[in-house]
This record gives sequence, structure tokens and C-alpha cells, in this order.
Amino acid sequence: MRGLFIHGKGDVRVENLPDPSPDDTDGVVVKVERTAICGSDLHIYHGDLGEGSFGIGHEAIGEVVEAGSGVQRFRTGDRVIVSGVVGCAQCGPCTRGSVTSCENDGGRVFGTNNALPGAQAEAIAVPKADTSLAKIPDGVSDASAVLLTDILPTGYLGAENANIAPGQDVAVVGCGPVGLMAIQTAQLFGPRRVFALDRVPARLAAAKALGAVPVDASSDPIAPILDATDGLGPHAVIEAVGGEATILTALQLVRKGGTVSVVGVPGPTPMPFPMGLALVKNLTFRIGVCPVPKFWPHLVPLIAEGRLQPDSVFTHEMGLGEGPEAYALFDSREDGVLKVMLDPTR
Amino acid sequence: MRGLFIHGKGDVRVENLPDPSPDDTDGVVVKVERTAICGSDLHIYHGDLGEGSFGIGHEAIGEVVEAGSGVQRFRTGDRVIVSGVVGCAQCGPCTRGSVTSCENDGGRVFGTNNALPGAQAEAIAVPKADTSLAKIPDGVSDASAVLLTDILPTGYLGAENANIAPGQDVAVVGCGPVGLMAIQTAQLFGPRRVFALDRVPARLAAAKALGAVPVDASSDPIAPILDATDGLGPHAVIEAVGGEATILTALQLVRKGGTVSVVGVPGPTPMPFPMGLALVKNLTFRIGVCPVPKFWPHLVPLIAEGRLQPDSVFTHEMGLGEGPEAYALFDSREDGVLKVMLDPTR
Amino acid sequence: MRGLFIHGKGDVRVENLPDPSPDDTDGVVVKVERTAICGSDLHIYHGDLGEGSFGIGHEAIGEVVEAGSGVQRFRTGDRVIVSGVVGCAQCGPCTRGSVTSCENDGGRVFGTNNALPGAQAEAIAVPKADTSLAKIPDGVSDASAVLLTDILPTGYLGAENANIAPGQDVAVVGCGPVGLMAIQTAQLFGPRRVFALDRVPARLAAAKALGAVPVDASSDPIAPILDATDGLGPHAVIEAVGGEATILTALQLVRKGGTVSVVGVPGPTPMPFPMGLALVKNLTFRIGVCPVPKFWPHLVPLIAEGRLQPDSVFTHEMGLGEGPEAYALFDSREDGVLKVMLDPTR
Amino acid sequence: MRGLFIHGKGDVRVENLPDPSPDDTDGVVVKVERTAICGSDLHIYHGDLGEGSFGIGHEAIGEVVEAGSGVQRFRTGDRVIVSGVVGCAQCGPCTRGSVTSCENDGGRVFGTNNALPGAQAEAIAVPKADTSLAKIPDGVSDASAVLLTDILPTGYLGAENANIAPGQDVAVVGCGPVGLMAIQTAQLFGPRRVFALDRVPARLAAAKALGAVPVDASSDPIAPILDATDGLGPHAVIEAVGGEATILTALQLVRKGGTVSVVGVPGPTPMPFPMGLALVKNLTFRIGVCPVPKFWPHLVPLIAEGRLQPDSVFTHEMGLGEGPEAYALFDSREDGVLKVMLDPTR
Repeated sequence: MRGLFIHGKGDVRVENLPDPSPDDTDGVVVKVERTAICGSDLHIYHGDLGEGSFGIGHEAIGEVVEAGSGVQRFRTGDRVIVSGVVGCAQCGPCTRGSVTSCENDGGRVFGTNNALPGAQAEAIAVPKADTSLAKIPDGVSDASAVLLTDILPTGYLGAENANIAPGQDVAVVGCGPVGLMAIQTAQLFGPRRVFALDRVPARLAAAKALGAVPVDASSDPIAPILDATDGLGPHAVIEAVGGEATILTALQLVRKGGTVSVVGVPGPTPMPFPMGLALVKNLTFRIGVCPVPKFWPHLVPLIAEGRLQPDSVFTHEMGLGEGPEAYALFDSREDGVLKVMLDPTR
Repeated sequence: MRGLFIHGKGDVRVENLPDPSPDDTDGVVVKVERTAICGSDLHIYHGDLGEGSFGIGHEAIGEVVEAGSGVQRFRTGDRVIVSGVVGCAQCGPCTRGSVTSCENDGGRVFGTNNALPGAQAEAIAVPKADTSLAKIPDGVSDASAVLLTDILPTGYLGAENANIAPGQDVAVVGCGPVGLMAIQTAQLFGPRRVFALDRVPARLAAAKALGAVPVDASSDPIAPILDATDGLGPHAVIEAVGGEATILTALQLVRKGGTVSVVGVPGPTPMPFPMGLALVKNLTFRIGVCPVPKFWPHLVPLIAEGRLQPDSVFTHEMGLGEGPEAYALFDSREDGVLKVMLDPTR
Repeated sequence: MRGLFIHGKGDVRVENLPDPSPDDTDGVVVKVERTAICGSDLHIYHGDLGEGSFGIGHEAIGEVVEAGSGVQRFRTGDRVIVSGVVGCAQCGPCTRGSVTSCENDGGRVFGTNNALPGAQAEAIAVPKADTSLAKIPDGVSDASAVLLTDILPTGYLGAENANIAPGQDVAVVGCGPVGLMAIQTAQLFGPRRVFALDRVPARLAAAKALGAVPVDASSDPIAPILDATDGLGPHAVIEAVGGEATILTALQLVRKGGTVSVVGVPGPTPMPFPMGLALVKNLTFRIGVCPVPKFWPHLVPLIAEGRLQPDSVFTHEMGLGEGPEAYALFDSREDGVLKVMLDPTR
Repeated sequence: MRGLFIHGKGDVRVENLPDPSPDDTDGVVVKVERTAICGSDLHIYHGDLGEGSFGIGHEAIGEVVEAGSGVQRFRTGDRVIVSGVVGCAQCGPCTRGSVTSCENDGGRVFGTNNALPGAQAEAIAVPKADTSLAKIPDGVSDASAVLLTDILPTGYLGAENANIAPGQDVAVVGCGPVGLMAIQTAQLFGPRRVFALDRVPARLAAAKALGAVPVDASSDPIAPILDATDGLGPHAVIEAVGGEATILTALQLVRKGGTVSVVGVPGPTPMPFPMGLALVKNLTFRIGVCPVPKFWPHLVPLIAEGRLQPDSVFTHEMGLGEGPEAYALFDSREDGVLKVMLDPTR
């Protein structure tokens, strides 16, 4: 079968790989129907995860074509969402749904330096199937299903961690794909307003279309938001970039007694943190990697009901065979490029 | 000034009363601009609160025309919402916003057997003004402001007590005015569906207009809701009637591990309660009287922003001088009668 | 092997049964080292669960002597606590630890009308071993381990459901074995005082030894507790009997805004419930069956550390062969009889 | 009257000051019976709050000797605890008890650059008396009452913010006075163990006397704690120093999915923060200044009941007239010096 491999910084190739088989009796093989490129894949593309050649991608949906004897909840023929991250299914955190706090392996992510195979492929072996898969309900689009593998739950983690109560103000710093998911899921908590900060006009327009108040961050975004909130700032701020400047903006924006929730992925270098400011703000600060399956019971019904309609984040669809070009396009960060879907049949 | 008095079962009269003055240095006088009749006023109208003559009504908005020297947050000329219930402002629960758990007087309600004067009048004295009033923001309709005095916060109490998480199913039993407020405020918590039960077609239509799934309770409402929820029932059920049969329906509907939240007002007689059913359901059951001002920080911004638009619950407006006729109409429970506004200038 | 069977009201017999084998690949067989009689076994003894002959008992510890091929966390030779209740391990509530809200079978209890075999036996087959067992740490007594199979977690459920904050007052209604467990686990939440109500002097003495304030319920227990709490009542009341009178006492005792948490097992008949009182109390009422394994991560470390020392609840130890006599003794409710351990080697 | 003033780095003097009178109708004057020096006073002593001459100290108890006409809960003759911090009593956060998130002045602290007078004096004017004072119950020692003005509630904030569940492991980094209060209040949440880190033997001994597991931080403290916790680290870490190294230790210690709660007071310079480590830890991080009166309902009853006995933190008592010597002694950080009480009659 074909799959995308990376061989060093910027060197993505389409390769022929052996057909996968289940890891173990509790694993399955999924024939991939759609897969997408995630912002965190660009960290790999830029070489931030070190040297080595390995399959990439962690967002995939498809059909179960082979199932181990111990798999109880799925059978061949089921159309499924594959969680981008997989825990051991046995430790305390895993049995409480917190797979990214797994005591055994910390939660393995597909397509990252060989911990698990790459999901940008014609098929993948998925371990711990009973806890790593969800069936795709009738009427759910492929695009929505792909978003449920990672970035929609990640946005939801950002919103849930932000402690939003009805009537409160929220800000989302960064309107890339994850930020747009955070905006939509923040709306589930009954906020008064969701301020959305970015510098790119197309992203601000996308945020506005989701009911947010766009704030152009190419000039100072803090003053207008303080003005609009009686000088107090939003009760909750979700950071969806992972950068030093954007996290600082979040800390400066948030109201006293409020919460900053980070779902952007920072680099490995420590950042300066204004601890004295945090003290007088009586701050709650949360950051983490999304335990994807934990949030499916919340999100899948809303997608099925049409109450969440996140598909518009996809701006491009290309063939798996165009993987190298797709990465280059996505990495260009051109204005109209938000998220790229790959079709393994092409 | 004129005000409505009750002199026994069904005997509401318009009377001339002395002009009010502030109770104390921390009280104000509000010239009433609009006042409404609440379902709980009908308990009084039916004589359920015993004999005696007293002013009635607890839902009023208007203008502060006199303020005690100790009032800090309001001054004459302010247009205000008056909380239907007032606590002592000093005890532990009151200082935490739980005025209906007041340790000194349990929270006094306007227009109930002389604890506080009736709000269906041209003016009222409001004690503990700093904690019993909220300013009416620009652009908020009189109808919305009146709903903020009692039934919108009461519906919100029902929703907040129900522990709704995004993606969960909710049922609201009873689509009278409080039930319709519960439906709207339940939507603030990101539910998948809100099932709305009633027997009156106009009320079911009103529920549907608010995004609920109407369920006709004139035949068995439980089976269709179980069918729609994989046999499990909704995660949360809000009861907005206070009757024995409707509370039983709520208990039968709710999913194992779920919550039943009652905001209907039951009579004084103990009710049969299926304790064994509650046990196997791992039930959380909540019931209470709304501490109105506690929820203003959540609801006033949403009204001001237009995210909550509850005004359509008002079906009739009459003059204060037509008070007796207004009570008779409201008590008729005719299909098209949901809530009656009174204008003190008429 | 030998095991206890019931053949109708009051008719417990020691019988010879076939040796068990694992139900399935995810089950084990445990050779029972100690088993105990629970208050809820008396419901069966009194014939409340209907006719039929079946093995009884649901509290057992022992050694794994056979393990199915799919069992991952346990192997033969492990000494284990067996949860008295077992869920399907696959549905939503089960994967969140709420096995008694299992969507498939509601949580099956050992020794109840053949759902699962009786644990008062020389050996039992335990299904879903990975989620139904916990290893017994070194230094933990047999008595503590047996208490972890049901009544200690049940007492903890009562305390956790009661929403106790540090410095608050608590009352426990009923000082039988579950009530004594509730007293000890309520102490984990930093209360000011735990009032303990019962009519039996030995039980009140046991409560006092656990740091509670004993209140003799043979005369009115409500007045002295109100006196000791400025007329307000305790913030939280745990009911550990399941009776109509004791639940009513709990509702009368609890402070406005407080919580009543029931872990007693009520009979099947609906009870009169003072709904109007509940309304003015702004009540939270919780009742349920304990999802035992969910609380092991909290309780096992405290037992291992010696911070919980519940063993003194056992007043008698007899041989399994004396089962009929043990039931008769336990059912006598004589003053000095609190809980009876059975030794399968005798 | 006499009071301590600071006139620049290290220059504390006893001065004659005018007798205070109430600020406003809602204020009182308290004749100080005991006052203490806090670790945060040393920031002032070291000149960290800038130039200027002002009265110092924020921990005082005494007797109300004059009360404004608007004060409702206190009268002359009452013996009271004075909160070290005072809010406006009118804004949203203040009416919810979060005085240190006050929207008007952020919560004013006595004895800090003239915001409010110094409490190390024979008398002080206390504004907003109804929300800033608590009566001292019979039988409560002066030492306990003084600890309730600041550091005991601050320790409790650290513990409450740390999200401790029964059976979990906790670490407290720093065993100065606030750290010792954090240890005692962490015990209210039913932990398995409280690891206590410090380099000073006397402080480690004090921690051990409070039931903690002492860990000598003069060599690597992380490895032994990881060893004792199966390599996972404590679920909750309370930092009670405010330093860069100690906060980093807290972040390194905490278990995945756990919480770091800071109640030490950091300096104004931003600190390096290991954001990538925080990400993979799925961290909750909280820091803030204690809203003292909010926690009195939890702590005063426990002190009155004898369940909290924090007095032993006081190692020295001196006269107010020896203020300069007392500061010098406290600043020496000699091994046996933990906390210094001042007696205004001397």
C-alpha cells in the first residue's frame, strides 16, 4: 500500500509500504478513506522532532477491514473515526479516559517518529481498538469525521479547560484550524461574546462567520478588548498557537480570577512567564494534549444533530499521491489555506 | 397610589394605598413601570397561602425615585430590575448569593402574605437595594427586564441544577412560562436535544420555536423519548410544574446516573417518591427556590447581547386597573394565554 | 467445593457445588480466603428478592487460581479484592467507572438471584477481571480487604455524594456497618463534626470511637443537633439505613442549601417525600448503588498507609460451614453483632 | 498611639501616630491585642515595594472600640480577627468573596505603601467591617486568631487550589510558616501522604510533627519522591516560596494530569517556564493572593473545634516597642526562627 514518509526536514515522499495487520488481539486494521494534515505535522515537517524516517499523519477515518479476536465493540465493515492518540487502556488515567496522561507510555500519537505508524496512508493498524475508535453515525460528513480525530476535540479541550460559564466573555488567541474549533466549541458553553484574535484577514473572516467578534492582532489587540469589557478583560482566554507572544497576550488579556487555557503546541524552550502578573490575577492556567476519545460522547452527538458544523475549515482536498505538494502548500501559510484533506484513492 | 390586593380566594381588587418610603437607609423606592403575573401568584389566588388581605405580585421593573443614605450602587433615576426575593444581605448564604437559603428569614418574597409589599402596584419599597436590584442596560426591552425579576432566573436555576454537559440530552417537563425559560437556558449548556413535554398545543409550538423537540404528553411521553435515546432516557430532566405526576414522569425519564431538577412549586402535601427506582438510577435530585440576583451576572449580559430573547412568552398586556380581569384571564389557562403584563400607568 | 445457597426465606444451606471456571477469556477464578455477610444479604434472607434457589454473598477476597487468556492486569497467585458488583466494561458509564449505571446490565451483583454466583463459597468465577479486581497491597489486613469489596466504598460514596467541605457539619443517620464506614470516610473531607445517630448503645459507642458525636435516636435526635448548629442543621446528611423514617429525619436535619446522601437500601414501595420542605431547603438529594472499583484508587492507598482503619466493625468470625448459624446470628441484630466474617477453610 | 513605620530598606522604627478613627460609616477601629510579622513583610523590609515611609504589618487581632453607624454585624467590645486584605464589598468578585480580584482596587492590603495603615500598631482603622472582620469564638487562642488573618487562609488557598482528592499524594515545597499552614490544611482533604520539602532541619522537623513526610531538599528531592510514588510523582504540589527554582521543582514533581498550586509570592521579574513540560504533563497551574474572609467559614470552626492546631508555628513573642529588633531577628532566617508575634502592650 502507499503511505507518506518523512526523511528529514521538508522531505515528504509517497512510499510503498507493506500492508498492515493488527498489532495484537485487541487491534484492528482500518482502510483509510480520508486523512488530513494537522498543524502539528508541520513541527515534524520542519524537523523539530529530530532525525529519522517514519510514516506521518494522525488524522484518519475509514473502514475496519480486519479485527483482532479480542475486539468487542467493532467488526469488519464498520466505518470509524480513529483517535490520533492511543493509550494503554489499562492504567488509572486511561481507564478514566485521560489517555494523554497514560502512566505506561504517555499516550502514543500516530505518525510521530515511529511510536505508531503514519495515518496518511491507504491503511493503518490501530491498537486498543475498543477505546481508540468510534463509529461514524449516518449522515455525518467525511470532513466532520476527520475533524473528530484530533482538532475538534482539541478545540473542545481548550474550551472545557477554560471554565466558561453562561454570559461570560471569552477570547481565542489564534484563528488557525484549532482556534476555529475552539471558537465553535466555546459557543457550547453559552458565552456572551467570543473575541477572536488573528492577523490574517481570511482567518478573522472565518472566525466572524462562526459568531465570534474578530479582533485584528496586527495592531494592539488588548486595548479594544479591555474597552469592550469595562477594562476587566474576558473571563476565559483560549490560546491556540503555542507561541511565547500569544501566551503572553492571553495572560495580559484575562480578567482577575479567570482562566487561560492553552491548546497550542509550544516548542521545547522554556518561555518567560510573568509570575507576578499571574499572582495578582489569581490565575488558573491549563495546558495539555487532548485525550481525544474522552470527548467523543460530547462531540459526536452534536455533529450528528447538526449543532456543530465545522467542515468549512477545510479549504483544499488533494490526493494522497500529492502528499509532498500538499505539505508544501499547507506550509506556505498562504492566506486562503486553512486545512488540507487527502484522499487515499488518489 | 394604586396597587392590587387579595382579600381571599379569587378576590383581587385595585386599591388606593399610601405612597411607600424606603424601609431603612439601605432601601429604595421604585416607581413601577411594568409588572407581571407569575404562575406562583395563582397559588395565592387559589387561597393556598391561607387567609388574610395583602398586596400581591413580585415581578416589577421601574425607576428608582428615592434612595436611602446607605445605598451605594444605585441612585434616583436609575432604571432597575427588582429581584422577586430579598435576603438579609449579611448571613453566610446571602453573602454567597444564596438569598433563598438566608439564615435569618429564608429570603422574603414580595407580595406573599405581607412579608414584603405587593409589586403589582404603582410603586414599591425595596429593601437591601445594593443586592436586590440590577440596572437595566440600554436596549433591553421591558419584557425581558420583567422576566429577569423571577422566571428567567428560575428557568436558569433549573438548567444549572441539571448538570447538563455539551452533547447530552435534556427533557423539560411542562412548557408553561417557567418551562419555556428552562428550555432557553438549557440551550446555553450545549445540549444535543431538549425534549419538551406538555399537553397544550400552543405551549408545544412555543417550545418548538425555541429549538426544542415537542413531545405531546396527552398520551404516554416516556416511550417516544426512550426510543429516541437508545432506551436510556435523557441525561437531565427539568421539571417545571411541581406536580406529583410530572415529578414522577421526570424520575421515570431520567437516565441512570442523571439528574432531575425541579423548579416547579409543589403543594404542601408529601408526595409518593419511588425511592427504589431512584436507587437503581443513581439519582441526583435537586429542588429549590431561585436566588434571583445570583444569576443576573450570567443572564443580563446574554439579554443585552441578544443571545437570549425570551419576550415572546408574553401573550397579553393589560392595565394595572384591570388587575382582577387579568387574574381571571390568566387563571383560565386558555390555550393562548401564557403570561400577562400589567401597565401601572393604566 | 462448598458454598452457601438460599432456598427461600431464612433457609440458608451449605452445599456442594461444581468447581467454577472462568466465564470467558476476560474472567478469572478466585479461591476465596475470606468472605463476609452484608446487611443487604438480609434482604435476600428475608425473601425480599423473591423465590428461587441461588448462591449468596458478594463480599470476598482471595487468590487468583485461574485466569482467562485476555486478562491483562492479573495472573495466578495474585491476592485480590473482588468488587461486589461487575459491569460490562464496554459501555459509556462503565468506561467512566460508573459500573452501577451500566447501560447493558445495570451492574450485576454477586449472589443475587443468579445474576452472578454467590461469593460465600470456597471459590468464585469473576468476569471482567481487569476492571473487577484490585491487588491487595502488602500489610493490608484481610478484614480491611473484605471491607473494600463493598461497604467501605459504599460509605465513601455516601460521603462523596454529600458534598462535604472542610469545616462543615455532617450527620450520619444509622450506625450499622455502612454507617460506620460513612463516618470514617466523611472524616476524609475535613468536617468540623460528624454527628452519628442510632438507637443501639454499642453502635453509638463504635461511632464515638471513630471521632463522631453520638446522638441517641431513641428520643428526638433533631432538636439537639439543631441546638448544636445554631438552629441551622448540618450541611450534609448521610443516610445509611434506607428506611422511610430515617430518610425523613435526614431531610428534616439538613441545612438549607445542603445535601442529603442516601446509601441505605430502601424497599420497593414508594415513600412519602416532603416535597414542599425540600423546596424551601434548596435541597440536593442523592441516592445510588456504589460503583465499587471507582473508589479503590482513593481508598486502597489510605488503607495501605494506615490512615483508614475500619477493621473494628467485624465483631464475629465463623466458618463457612457455619453459614446458617452465622446468618441467624447476624439477623438477630443483637447489640454486640455488627458484622460477621466467614472463613472458607472451616 | 505607637505603630511601626518603615523609612527605607531595613529601617523600621517605632513611631507615635495619631489615634485612628473609622474611615467611613461602614468602618471600625480595632484596638490591637496581638499582631505578627509575615514573610511578605520582609519584601517591604528589603525595599522591594519601592521608596516611601509608611506603616507596616497586616496581621492583627483585637477589640472593636469604635464602629461606624452603618456597621451591622459588629459592635464595640467584640473581639475580632482582621482580614489582612480588604475589598470594595460592592463589585461582582467582592460579593462572591473574591476580594483579591476586586474590580475597583484589587483588594487593599494593610501596611503596604499606604494603601491601608499598618497593623503593627496599637490600633487600626478597618474599612468595610461587615466583610473584613470575624468574631473570635470562645476558647480560640490569640495565636490561632492571628494566623487566621492571613497565613492560615493562605495555606488553605494553596490546598484548595491543588484539587486534592482522598487517597492522593501531595507535596509542599517550602516549609516556612505558609508552607506549614499548607501542610495542615492539605491534611483536611484526606491525602495519602504529604511530602514536605525544605533544607532547614527545624522546618522539616516541624513538618514531620504535622504528619508530613519530610524530604531534605539540600540534595535532589525529586528522585526520592518519584521513587515513593511509582515514578509518577504526587497528584498535587503546593509551592509556598515563590522562587524560580522551587516553582520549577513543583513542575518537575507533579504527576501527569495533576495540579501545581502556588501561594509563595514571586518577585516582579518574569521566570523561565518549561511550557513543553507543562504540555505533556496536562498541567493545571494556579497562583493567587488569598481572599482571606472567604475561607473563614471553613477554618474558624475547625480552629474552634480543635481540629486545626497551628499555634506551634510561633517561635518568638516580643513587644511592639521591640519592632526593629523583631524584624532583624525574623530577617536573620536563623534555624529556630519561624514566626514572631508582637504584643502592643509592650
